[in-house]
Amino acid sequence: MTLFFEDFSAGQSYASATLRVEAAAITAFAAEFDPQPFHLDDEAGRQSLFGGLAASGWHTAAMTMRLLVAGEFRPAGGILGIGGELTWLAPVHPGDVLRVVAEIVETRLSRSRPAHGLVKVRVATLNQHGETVQTFTPTLLVERRDAKQAPDSADR
Amino acid sequence: MTLFFEDFSAGQSYASATLRVEAAAITAFAAEFDPQPFHLDDEAGRQSLFGGLAASGWHTAAMTMRLLVAGEFRPAGGILGIGGELTWLAPVHPGDVLRVVAEIVETRLSRSRPAHGLVKVRVATLNQHGETVQTFTPTLLVERRDAKQAPDSADR
Repeated sequence: MTLFFEDFSAGQSYASATLRVEAAAITAFAAEFDPQPFHLDDEAGRQSLFGGLAASGWHTAAMTMRLLVAGEFRPAGGILGIGGELTWLAPVHPGDVLRVVAEIVETRLSRSRPAHGLVKVRVATLNQHGETVQTFTPTLLVERRDAKQAPDSADR
Repeated sequence: MTLFFEDFSAGQSYASATLRVEAAAITAFAAEFDPQPFHLDDEAGRQSLFGGLAASGWHTAAMTMRLLVAGEFRPAGGILGIGGELTWLAPVHPGDVLRVVAEIVETRLSRSRPAHGLVKVRVATLNQHGETVQTFTPTLLVERRDAKQAPDSADR
């Protein structure tokens, strides 16, 4: 179900499916975007702070987005982030199974975009042990229910 | 040249090569990690806030990392981010040419990891018009020159 700005309030929580992280996915992502030894090679991973082959933090972030887009959290107009605080807390290793929990932190109107509201959400990425491996706390632009009547002046 | 913690100080700046963003790369990344219409389809992009097919913010972040890893900024032990503030400022469209400028914001010692220092860096991603499309301001763990003599107690 699509949710408009008016449907969100602090404390609401949305779940996702799970995603198993394969070694081949870790090394393929790293080869394209983050070719550092500890993301590409088992032995280099073991000798690093990660203690074993570890996914690039950007791979973890991208997998988090994939889980979020396919999950229960469906804001009107799509998931449109302006940005936020991103923190990596624990390494992601081959065989880990990730899931995402999105919790609404606050909602407020946008002065510059009357057709949208701002929704701040804390997106936690957890592994199969319940450890949080990443948090991201973006502010999102979410359409208001009456957006068609009062379009943003800045909208194209 | 590999740079140790002691080599960094606020105000230093490091450049990267450039990367041209192809439409096929935008849609391939989106199909795998961020399958929202404005990242997959020209017409949906035109009707969105982006004004045209636009790269996922996570794709921009991943391309930024690729440019950073291949660029002048080579901290000892690799580019190991704990996290930081990530902001998307302008859309990335097919044909855009990205480059990265990393500027050291501050350096300080780590209490919990005596073999490492903490380096805060502002990584700006610019397009061919000189517009900043993304900023990321992570704190990185960087090896100290005398790390071998005083390993972190928490290191494996």
